[in-house]
Amino acid sequence: MIGEFYMNYLDYLPILKKLNAVEREELLNAAFTRKFGKGELLHNGNNDCTGLIIVLFGQLRAYTSSYDGREITLYRLFERDTCLFSASCMLNNLQFDITVSAEKDSEVLVIPSEVYKKIMEASAPLSNYTNEIMASRFSDVMWLMDQIMWKSFDKRLAEFLITESGVEESDTLIITHEVIGNHLGSPREVVTRMLKYFVNEKFITLSRGKIQIIDKKGLRKIAEI
Amino acid sequence: MIGEFYMNYLDYLPILKKLNAVEREELLNAAFTRKFGKGELLHNGNNDCTGLIIVLFGQLRAYTSSYDGREITLYRLFERDTCLFSASCMLNNLQFDITVSAEKDSEVLVIPSEVYKKIMEASAPLSNYTNEIMASRFSDVMWLMDQIMWKSFDKRLAEFLITESGVEESDTLIITHEVIGNHLGSPREVVTRMLKYFVNEKFITLSRGKIQIIDKKGLRKIAEI
Repeated sequence: MIGEFYMNYLDYLPILKKLNAVEREELLNAAFTRKFGKGELLHNGNNDCTGLIIVLFGQLRAYTSSYDGREITLYRLFERDTCLFSASCMLNNLQFDITVSAEKDSEVLVIPSEVYKKIMEASAPLSNYTNEIMASRFSDVMWLMDQIMWKSFDKRLAEFLITESGVEESDTLIITHEVIGNHLGSPREVVTRMLKYFVNEKFITLSRGKIQIIDKKGLRKIAEI
Repeated sequence: MIGEFYMNYLDYLPILKKLNAVEREELLNAAFTRKFGKGELLHNGNNDCTGLIIVLFGQLRAYTSSYDGREITLYRLFERDTCLFSASCMLNNLQFDITVSAEKDSEVLVIPSEVYKKIMEASAPLSNYTNEIMASRFSDVMWLMDQIMWKSFDKRLAEFLITESGVEESDTLIITHEVIGNHLGSPREVVTRMLKYFVNEKFITLSRGKIQIIDKKGLRKIAEI
């Protein structure tokens, strides 16, 4: 049973190879899989401490919100990515709340926090691995901070459309202006205004709940990527 | 020699207690102190990899800059604080550049990156300690992100003046509008305009290179703290 499980998930969690047999068995015995439908919350703030989550398939979104419900996407998680902050209670000194929701139907592997924490405290490889995940998410957030601080909104929106088109593998994006606003931390009206500017520039066409990219090169030029 | 050094710095680096004797000796043998004058750079971007820095006395500032030289303060480090990103090369997946400079004349203890990294890779306590520092800085940056995204500039400036008055232990702040702008990531003109509003509201008075706080309660009310 464990053998099979191990073989299946080794691909998703290569750190398992560096643990000793006892640690590995304890970790895998505690691990379980869970499915989340599109839109479902996996993690909500600091009090919620599900555990370390590894995406088996699907797509997750980590974001932070204002007290009045505005949102900004911090990073997205795809297959094989690891969500550390869903196990935030096991990290001392971590004092911020993020929310993680499923952007698509997803299945994840969950390693409960208390088991992960116990092994991490004694295992240098697991602790160093945790360091690497955190450094990676920290880099995502610092990148975002640079964007917010120094990049104008037209550039950010153009870049978002190109990224989204890559993620969806399509030039037709089924997305509302409000959802885009929640990704970028901007009011819906600001998104709508800039999209209309992109229409005028013939980069995109708009129809209800849909954005059609017609000049990706033009968007890239705006985005400076 | 090491014994004395150990006694002196144990206070600043309590993690030493959790290392074994060999690790502790290696770490302390490699450590050295360095002085930085006010304004001097301790660390500049990802290519610079001095080592882990512990503030013995003084005050450091970590910030990020735009390509055209604008700045925003990420966090400040005071006595006993540890600067992790001055040892960024030892953290895999860390892909962002910060600058650290001395805000006051400072003396720091430096643990060279290669020694720290070597011990961290084998030592769960040191690796977990590194995790804690990173989580703490990550929390600082997430707090800042929330401020930038959801808090209006009058609140941020009022809060900055109150914090600064606490740090300096004085209601007279010797600081230019440009330096405040570099802390908050805002152009000088925006700072000047808001300070003038604070003058009108009788929270402060302004004179050349100096801000006098005359109504801290009023500022606190604006800052909502």
